[in-house]
Amino acid sequence: MLRQTVATLKVSTGRRGFQEITRQVQALVSDAGVQTGLCTLHLQHTSASLLIQENADPDVRRDLERFFARLVPDGDALFIHTAEGEDDMPAHVRTALTTVNLSVPVADGRLCLGTWQGIYLWEHRHRPHTRSIVVHVLGENA
Amino acid sequence: MLRQTVATLKVSTGRRGFQEITRQVQALVSDAGVQTGLCTLHLQHTSASLLIQENADPDVRRDLERFFARLVPDGDALFIHTAEGEDDMPAHVRTALTTVNLSVPVADGRLCLGTWQGIYLWEHRHRPHTRSIVVHVLGENA
Amino acid sequence: MLRQTVATLKVSTGRRGFQEITRQVQALVSDAGVQTGLCTLHLQHTSASLLIQENADPDVRRDLERFFARLVPDGDALFIHTAEGEDDMPAHVRTALTTVNLSVPVADGRLCLGTWQGIYLWEHRHRPHTRSIVVHVLGENA
Repeated sequence: MLRQTVATLKVSTGRRGFQEITRQVQALVSDAGVQTGLCTLHLQHTSASLLIQENADPDVRRDLERFFARLVPDGDALFIHTAEGEDDMPAHVRTALTTVNLSVPVADGRLCLGTWQGIYLWEHRHRPHTRSIVVHVLGENA
Repeated sequence: MLRQTVATLKVSTGRRGFQEITRQVQALVSDAGVQTGLCTLHLQHTSASLLIQENADPDVRRDLERFFARLVPDGDALFIHTAEGEDDMPAHVRTALTTVNLSVPVADGRLCLGTWQGIYLWEHRHRPHTRSIVVHVLGENA
Repeated sequence: MLRQTVATLKVSTGRRGFQEITRQVQALVSDAGVQTGLCTLHLQHTSASLLIQENADPDVRRDLERFFARLVPDGDALFIHTAEGEDDMPAHVRTALTTVNLSVPVADGRLCLGTWQGIYLWEHRHRPHTRSIVVHVLGENA
Protein backbone atom coordinates (compact mmCIF):
# COMPACT_ATOMS: atom_id res chain seq x y z
CA MET A 1 0.00 0.00 0.00
CA LEU A 2 1.44 3.37 -1.05
CA ARG A 3 1.76 5.99 1.66
CA GLN A 4 3.57 9.27 2.20
CA THR A 5 5.32 11.40 4.81
CA VAL A 6 6.34 15.06 4.82
CA ALA A 7 9.15 16.32 7.05
CA THR A 8 11.28 19.44 7.26
CA LEU A 9 15.07 19.34 7.36
CA LYS A 10 16.84 22.35 8.88
CA VAL A 11 20.40 23.06 7.73
CA SER A 12 22.67 25.73 9.18
CA THR A 13 25.13 27.21 6.71
CA GLY A 14 28.21 29.03 7.92
CA ARG A 15 29.18 30.73 4.67
CA ARG A 16 28.84 30.51 0.86
CA GLY A 17 29.54 26.96 -0.29
CA PHE A 18 28.37 23.36 -0.33
CA GLN A 19 27.01 21.31 2.54
CA GLU A 20 26.26 17.63 1.95
CA ILE A 21 22.84 16.46 3.15
CA THR A 22 22.70 12.98 1.59
CA ARG A 23 22.83 11.20 4.96
CA GLN A 24 20.04 13.29 6.48
CA VAL A 25 17.78 12.73 3.46
CA GLN A 26 18.49 8.98 3.48
CA ALA A 27 17.63 8.92 7.21
CA LEU A 28 14.20 10.44 6.45
CA VAL A 29 13.61 7.79 3.77
CA SER A 30 14.63 5.02 6.19
CA ASP A 31 12.48 6.49 9.00
CA ALA A 32 9.49 6.44 6.63
CA GLY A 33 9.99 2.69 6.23
CA VAL A 34 9.96 3.00 2.44
CA GLN A 35 11.63 0.29 0.35
CA THR A 36 10.41 1.43 -3.09
CA GLY A 37 9.28 4.94 -3.83
CA LEU A 38 10.10 8.55 -4.63
CA CYS A 39 11.77 11.22 -2.50
CA THR A 40 11.16 14.88 -3.40
CA LEU A 41 13.06 17.79 -1.85
CA HIS A 42 12.00 21.41 -1.93
CA LEU A 43 14.22 24.20 -0.58
CA GLN A 44 12.09 27.07 0.73
CA HIS A 45 14.52 29.88 -0.20
CA THR A 46 15.47 32.01 -3.20
CA SER A 47 19.17 32.59 -2.49
CA ALA A 48 20.40 29.01 -2.07
CA SER A 49 20.09 25.86 -4.22
CA LEU A 50 19.82 22.09 -4.09
CA LEU A 51 22.38 20.33 -6.27
CA ILE A 52 23.35 16.74 -6.96
CA GLN A 53 27.06 16.66 -7.71
CA GLU A 54 30.26 14.66 -7.31
CA ASN A 55 30.99 13.63 -3.74
CA ALA A 56 34.55 12.37 -4.35
CA ASP A 57 37.13 15.06 -5.21
CA PRO A 58 36.32 18.29 -3.27
CA ASP A 59 38.03 20.25 -6.09
CA VAL A 60 34.87 19.73 -8.17
CA ARG A 61 32.87 21.79 -5.69
CA ARG A 62 35.67 24.35 -5.40
CA ASP A 63 35.71 24.73 -9.20
CA LEU A 64 31.89 25.00 -9.35
CA GLU A 65 32.14 27.80 -6.78
CA ARG A 66 34.85 29.60 -8.78
CA PHE A 67 32.96 29.25 -12.05
CA PHE A 68 29.72 30.66 -10.63
CA ALA A 69 31.61 33.49 -8.86
CA ARG A 70 33.06 34.50 -12.23
CA LEU A 71 29.79 34.05 -14.14
CA VAL A 72 27.71 36.04 -11.63
CA PRO A 73 30.15 38.44 -9.93
CA ASP A 74 29.33 39.92 -6.54
CA GLY A 75 28.74 43.67 -6.80
CA ASP A 76 27.99 43.59 -10.55
CA ALA A 77 26.89 47.13 -11.55
CA LEU A 78 24.07 45.57 -13.61
CA PHE A 79 22.03 44.87 -10.48
CA ILE A 80 19.47 47.24 -8.90
CA HIS A 81 18.39 44.92 -6.06
CA THR A 82 21.30 45.36 -3.61
CA ALA A 83 19.35 45.84 -0.36
CA GLU A 84 21.20 43.05 1.44
CA GLY A 85 24.62 43.65 -0.04
CA GLU A 86 26.84 42.76 -2.99
CA ASP A 87 25.99 39.03 -2.82
CA ASP A 88 22.21 39.55 -2.65
CA MET A 89 21.24 39.59 -6.32
CA PRO A 90 24.05 37.18 -7.39
CA ALA A 91 22.54 34.68 -4.92
CA HIS A 92 19.14 34.97 -6.66
CA VAL A 93 20.73 34.52 -10.10
CA ARG A 94 22.76 31.49 -8.98
CA THR A 95 19.54 29.96 -7.63
CA ALA A 96 17.75 30.59 -10.94
CA LEU A 97 20.64 28.98 -12.86
CA THR A 98 20.43 25.84 -10.72
CA THR A 99 17.31 24.63 -8.87
CA VAL A 100 15.43 24.36 -5.54
CA ASN A 101 13.66 21.05 -6.41
CA LEU A 102 14.96 17.48 -6.61
CA SER A 103 13.19 14.12 -7.04
CA VAL A 104 15.10 10.90 -6.51
CA PRO A 105 13.57 7.40 -6.80
CA VAL A 106 14.07 4.93 -3.94
CA ALA A 107 14.77 1.19 -4.41
CA ASP A 108 15.75 -1.44 -1.82
CA GLY A 109 15.30 1.23 0.83
CA ARG A 110 18.05 3.47 -0.64
CA LEU A 111 17.99 6.72 -2.64
CA CYS A 112 18.90 5.71 -6.22
CA LEU A 113 21.94 7.99 -6.39
CA GLY A 114 24.89 7.14 -8.59
CA THR A 115 28.15 6.00 -7.02
CA TRP A 116 29.65 9.51 -7.23
CA GLN A 117 26.51 11.51 -6.51
CA GLY A 118 25.82 13.41 -3.30
CA ILE A 119 22.96 15.77 -2.50
CA TYR A 120 24.15 19.24 -1.53
CA LEU A 121 22.66 22.41 -0.17
CA TRP A 122 24.51 25.20 -1.99
CA GLU A 123 24.50 28.36 0.09
CA HIS A 124 24.95 31.44 -2.11
CA ARG A 125 25.03 34.09 0.65
CA HIS A 126 28.25 34.87 2.51
CA ARG A 127 26.63 35.22 5.94
CA PRO A 128 25.34 32.19 7.93
CA HIS A 129 21.70 31.19 7.37
CA THR A 130 19.33 28.50 8.59
CA ARG A 131 17.73 26.87 5.55
CA SER A 132 14.56 24.72 5.46
CA ILE A 133 14.10 21.81 3.07
CA VAL A 134 10.70 20.12 2.87
CA VAL A 135 11.14 16.40 2.16
CA HIS A 136 8.22 14.40 0.74
CA VAL A 137 8.64 10.61 0.79
CA LEU A 138 6.19 8.45 -1.14
CA GLY A 139 6.36 4.68 -1.32
CA GLU A 140 5.71 1.28 0.17
CA ASN A 141 7.70 -1.13 2.30
CA ALA A 142 8.21 -3.78 -0.37
CA MET B 1 -6.24 6.89 0.62
CA LEU B 2 -3.83 8.44 -1.92
CA ARG B 3 -5.36 9.74 -5.12
CA GLN B 4 -4.34 12.02 -7.99
CA THR B 5 -5.68 14.59 -10.43
CA VAL B 6 -4.21 16.02 -13.63
CA ALA B 7 -5.29 19.43 -14.95
CA THR B 8 -3.99 21.92 -17.49
CA LEU B 9 -3.40 25.57 -16.68
CA LYS B 10 -3.40 28.01 -19.61
CA VAL B 11 -1.43 31.23 -19.21
CA SER B 12 -1.40 34.11 -21.70
CA THR B 13 1.85 36.05 -21.83
CA GLY B 14 1.96 39.54 -23.29
CA ARG B 15 5.72 39.88 -23.65
CA ARG B 16 9.07 38.59 -22.33
CA GLY B 17 9.01 38.56 -18.54
CA PHE B 18 7.59 36.96 -15.40
CA GLN B 19 3.98 36.11 -14.66
CA GLU B 20 3.11 34.79 -11.21
CA ILE B 21 0.95 31.65 -11.17
CA THR B 22 1.12 30.71 -7.46
CA ARG B 23 -2.56 31.46 -6.84
CA GLN B 24 -3.75 29.40 -9.81
CA VAL B 25 -1.61 26.41 -8.79
CA GLN B 26 -2.79 26.64 -5.16
CA ALA B 27 -6.40 26.73 -6.44
CA LEU B 28 -5.83 23.43 -8.30
CA VAL B 29 -4.41 21.86 -5.12
CA SER B 30 -7.39 23.11 -3.10
CA ASP B 31 -9.88 21.92 -5.76
CA ALA B 32 -8.29 18.46 -5.57
CA GLY B 33 -9.12 18.38 -1.85
CA VAL B 34 -5.54 17.45 -0.98
CA GLN B 35 -4.26 18.23 2.54
CA THR B 36 -0.95 16.36 2.31
CA GLY B 37 0.76 15.50 -0.96
CA LEU B 38 2.91 16.53 -3.89
CA CYS B 39 2.20 18.99 -6.71
CA THR B 40 4.19 18.63 -9.95
CA LEU B 41 4.13 21.19 -12.77
CA HIS B 42 5.27 20.59 -16.33
CA LEU B 43 5.42 23.40 -18.89
CA GLN B 44 4.80 22.04 -22.40
CA HIS B 45 7.10 24.47 -24.24
CA THR B 46 10.78 24.91 -25.09
CA SER B 47 11.03 28.71 -25.12
CA ALA B 48 9.63 29.57 -21.68
CA SER B 49 10.44 28.35 -18.15
CA LEU B 50 8.97 27.67 -14.74
CA LEU B 51 10.83 29.38 -11.92
CA ILE B 52 10.41 29.70 -8.16
CA GLN B 53 11.77 33.09 -7.12
CA GLU B 54 11.31 36.01 -4.77
CA ASN B 55 7.80 37.48 -4.77
CA ALA B 56 8.61 40.59 -2.73
CA ASP B 57 10.83 43.19 -4.46
CA PRO B 58 10.03 43.28 -8.22
CA ASP B 59 13.61 44.47 -8.82
CA VAL B 60 14.74 40.87 -8.31
CA ARG B 61 12.79 39.80 -11.39
CA ARG B 62 13.97 42.87 -13.32
CA ASP B 63 17.59 42.02 -12.47
CA LEU B 64 17.10 38.35 -13.43
CA GLU B 65 15.75 39.53 -16.77
CA ARG B 66 18.72 41.89 -17.29
CA PHE B 67 21.26 39.23 -16.32
CA PHE B 68 19.84 36.64 -18.71
CA ALA B 69 19.56 39.23 -21.51
CA ARG B 70 23.28 39.92 -21.10
CA LEU B 71 24.26 36.24 -20.75
CA VAL B 72 22.25 35.11 -23.80
CA PRO B 73 21.99 38.16 -26.07
CA ASP B 74 19.24 38.36 -28.67
CA GLY B 75 20.66 38.21 -32.18
CA ASP B 76 23.93 36.55 -31.10
CA ALA B 77 25.89 35.69 -34.28
CA LEU B 78 26.68 32.28 -32.75
CA PHE B 79 23.19 31.00 -33.49
CA ILE B 80 22.09 29.20 -36.67
CA HIS B 81 18.47 28.59 -35.64
CA THR B 82 16.92 32.05 -36.22
CA ALA B 83 13.73 31.04 -38.06
CA GLU B 84 11.44 32.91 -35.68
CA GLY B 85 13.69 35.92 -35.09
CA GLU B 86 16.50 37.22 -32.89
CA ASP B 87 14.88 35.98 -29.65
CA ASP B 88 14.18 32.44 -30.94
CA MET B 89 17.38 30.62 -30.01
CA PRO B 90 18.06 32.76 -26.89
CA ALA B 91 14.63 31.61 -25.63
CA HIS B 92 15.68 27.95 -26.03
CA VAL B 93 18.99 28.58 -24.23
CA ARG B 94 17.30 30.44 -21.36
CA THR B 95 14.90 27.50 -21.01
CA ALA B 96 17.82 25.04 -20.91
CA LEU B 97 19.58 27.14 -18.23
CA THR B 98 16.47 27.09 -16.03
CA THR B 99 13.76 24.38 -16.10
CA VAL B 100 10.27 23.36 -17.25
CA ASN B 101 9.57 21.04 -14.25
CA LEU B 102 8.77 21.81 -10.62
CA SER B 103 7.66 19.58 -7.71
CA VAL B 104 6.40 21.17 -4.50
CA PRO B 105 5.15 19.20 -1.46
CA VAL B 106 1.76 20.07 0.04
CA ALA B 107 1.02 20.19 3.80
CA ASP B 108 -2.08 21.45 5.63
CA GLY B 109 -3.67 22.00 2.23
CA ARG B 110 -1.02 24.54 1.14
CA LEU B 111 1.93 24.40 -1.24
CA CYS B 112 5.05 24.26 0.97
CA LEU B 113 6.57 27.41 -0.49
CA GLY B 114 8.86 29.62 1.57
CA THR B 115 7.64 33.02 2.77
CA TRP B 116 9.32 34.84 -0.13
CA GLN B 117 8.77 32.22 -2.82
CA GLY B 118 6.36 32.58 -5.72
CA ILE B 119 5.90 30.29 -8.73
CA TYR B 120 6.44 32.11 -12.04
CA LEU B 121 6.03 31.39 -15.70
CA TRP B 122 9.02 33.07 -17.34
CA GLU B 123 8.21 33.95 -20.94
CA HIS B 124 11.38 34.23 -23.03
CA ARG B 125 9.79 35.31 -26.33
CA HIS B 126 8.97 38.96 -27.01
CA ARG B 127 5.64 38.28 -28.70
CA PRO B 128 2.51 37.14 -26.79
CA HIS B 129 1.97 33.40 -26.38
CA THR B 130 -0.53 31.07 -24.74
CA ARG B 131 1.38 28.60 -22.58
CA SER B 132 0.12 25.27 -21.18
CA ILE B 133 1.22 23.88 -17.83
CA VAL B 134 0.17 20.35 -16.86
CA VAL B 135 -0.39 20.14 -13.10
CA HIS B 136 -0.32 16.76 -11.37
CA VAL B 137 -1.63 16.72 -7.79
CA LEU B 138 -1.07 13.62 -5.67
CA GLY B 139 -2.20 13.29 -2.08
CA GLU B 140 -4.86 12.60 0.48
CA ASN B 141 -7.29 14.74 2.46
CA ALA B 142 -5.66 14.27 5.86
CA MET C 1 -5.59 1.88 -7.22
CA LEU C 2 -2.28 3.79 -7.40
CA ARG C 3 0.82 1.68 -7.91
CA GLN C 4 4.44 2.22 -8.91
CA THR C 5 7.33 0.67 -10.80
CA VAL C 6 11.04 1.46 -10.86
CA ALA C 7 13.23 0.54 -13.82
CA THR C 8 16.68 1.45 -15.09
CA LEU C 9 17.31 2.67 -18.62
CA LYS C 10 20.85 2.25 -20.00
CA VAL C 11 21.97 4.64 -22.72
CA SER C 12 25.26 4.41 -24.61
CA THR C 13 26.67 7.73 -25.73
CA GLY C 14 29.23 7.91 -28.48
CA ARG C 15 30.41 11.47 -27.95
CA ARG C 16 29.40 14.87 -26.49
CA GLY C 17 25.89 15.75 -27.65
CA PHE C 18 22.20 14.93 -27.44
CA GLN C 19 20.52 11.56 -27.60
CA GLU C 20 16.74 11.39 -27.61
CA ILE C 21 15.19 8.94 -25.13
CA THR C 22 11.50 9.92 -25.38
CA ARG C 23 10.49 6.61 -26.99
CA GLN C 24 12.27 4.49 -24.39
CA VAL C 25 10.71 6.43 -21.51
CA GLN C 26 7.24 6.20 -23.09
CA ALA C 27 7.74 2.44 -23.47
CA LEU C 28 8.41 2.12 -19.72
CA VAL C 29 5.22 4.08 -18.98
CA SER C 30 3.24 1.86 -21.35
CA ASP C 31 4.79 -1.32 -19.91
CA ALA C 32 3.71 -0.18 -16.43
CA GLY C 33 0.11 -0.07 -17.69
CA VAL C 34 -0.33 3.46 -16.40
CA GLN C 35 -3.04 5.66 -17.96
CA THR C 36 -2.85 8.57 -15.49
CA GLY C 37 0.18 9.29 -13.34
CA LEU C 38 3.63 10.76 -12.96
CA CYS C 39 6.94 9.69 -14.50
CA THR C 40 10.16 10.77 -12.76
CA LEU C 41 13.63 10.34 -14.28
CA HIS C 42 16.90 10.49 -12.39
CA LEU C 43 20.26 10.35 -14.17
CA GLN C 44 22.90 8.73 -11.94
CA HIS C 45 25.86 10.79 -13.17
CA THR C 46 27.50 14.17 -12.60
CA SER C 47 28.90 14.86 -16.06
CA ALA C 48 25.77 14.47 -18.21
CA SER C 49 22.26 15.97 -18.02
CA LEU C 50 18.62 15.30 -18.73
CA LEU C 51 16.97 18.00 -20.83
CA ILE C 52 13.57 18.54 -22.39
CA GLN C 53 14.04 20.52 -25.59
CA GLU C 54 12.80 21.02 -29.14
CA ASN C 55 12.66 17.82 -31.18
CA ALA C 56 12.02 19.46 -34.57
CA ASP C 57 14.93 21.49 -35.99
CA PRO C 58 18.27 19.82 -35.06
CA ASP C 59 19.92 23.27 -35.28
CA VAL C 60 18.40 24.04 -31.87
CA ARG C 61 20.49 21.29 -30.28
CA ARG C 62 23.55 22.31 -32.31
CA ASP C 63 23.17 25.90 -31.08
CA LEU C 64 22.67 24.74 -27.47
CA GLU C 65 25.91 22.78 -27.80
CA ARG C 66 27.76 25.80 -29.23
CA PHE C 67 26.43 28.15 -26.57
CA PHE C 68 27.45 25.86 -23.70
CA ALA C 69 30.87 25.23 -25.28
CA ARG C 70 31.45 28.99 -25.31
CA LEU C 71 30.03 29.57 -21.81
CA VAL C 72 32.04 26.75 -20.21
CA PRO C 73 35.14 26.32 -22.39
CA ASP C 74 37.08 23.06 -22.33
CA GLY C 75 40.52 23.55 -20.80
CA ASP C 76 39.57 26.76 -18.94
CA ALA C 77 42.56 27.74 -16.76
CA LEU C 78 40.13 28.48 -13.91
CA PHE C 79 39.69 24.79 -13.19
CA ILE C 80 41.79 22.72 -10.75
CA HIS C 81 39.94 19.41 -11.22
CA THR C 82 41.37 18.21 -14.54
CA ALA C 83 42.09 14.56 -13.67
CA GLU C 84 40.13 13.18 -16.62
CA GLY C 85 41.06 15.84 -19.15
CA GLU C 86 40.03 19.23 -20.48
CA ASP C 87 36.32 18.33 -20.66
CA ASP C 88 36.15 16.92 -17.11
CA MET C 89 35.27 19.99 -15.07
CA PRO C 90 33.28 21.67 -17.90
CA ALA C 91 31.07 18.55 -17.89
CA HIS C 92 30.36 19.02 -14.16
CA VAL C 93 29.57 22.72 -14.65
CA ARG C 94 27.25 22.03 -17.61
CA THR C 95 25.43 19.44 -15.45
CA ALA C 96 25.05 21.98 -12.61
CA LEU C 97 23.66 24.58 -15.07
CA THR C 98 21.04 22.11 -16.32
CA THR C 99 19.63 19.17 -14.31
CA VAL C 100 19.69 15.41 -13.69
CA ASN C 101 15.98 15.19 -12.61
CA LEU C 102 12.76 15.39 -14.61
CA SER C 103 9.11 14.77 -13.68
CA VAL C 104 6.47 14.54 -16.39
CA PRO C 105 2.76 13.85 -15.75
CA VAL C 106 1.04 11.06 -17.71
CA ALA C 107 -2.50 11.29 -19.13
CA ASP C 108 -4.34 8.92 -21.49
CA GLY C 109 -1.34 6.62 -21.26
CA ARG C 110 1.05 9.21 -22.75
CA LEU C 111 3.76 11.44 -21.28
CA CYS C 112 2.26 14.97 -21.24
CA LEU C 113 4.99 16.45 -23.43
CA GLY C 114 4.30 19.43 -25.67
CA THR C 115 4.14 18.95 -29.44
CA TRP C 116 7.75 20.10 -29.88
CA GLN C 117 9.23 18.57 -26.73
CA GLY C 118 11.55 15.60 -26.64
CA ILE C 119 13.43 14.13 -23.66
CA TYR C 120 17.20 14.07 -24.19
CA LEU C 121 20.23 12.68 -22.49
CA TRP C 122 22.89 15.35 -22.94
CA GLU C 123 26.36 13.80 -22.79
CA HIS C 124 28.96 16.38 -21.77
CA ARG C 125 32.06 14.17 -22.07
CA HIS C 126 33.79 13.67 -25.40
CA ARG C 127 34.49 9.96 -24.90
CA PRO C 128 31.73 7.30 -25.07
CA HIS C 129 29.96 6.41 -21.82
CA THR C 130 27.16 4.12 -20.67
CA ARG C 131 24.70 6.20 -18.66
CA SER C 132 22.02 4.92 -16.25
CA ILE C 133 18.67 6.63 -15.79
CA VAL C 134 16.35 5.42 -13.02
CA VAL C 135 12.72 5.77 -14.10
CA HIS C 136 9.96 5.84 -11.47
CA VAL C 137 6.42 5.46 -12.80
CA LEU C 138 3.49 6.14 -10.48
CA GLY C 139 -0.15 5.91 -11.50
CA GLU C 140 -3.24 3.88 -12.23
CA ASN C 141 -4.76 2.29 -15.31
CA ALA C 142 -7.74 4.64 -15.61
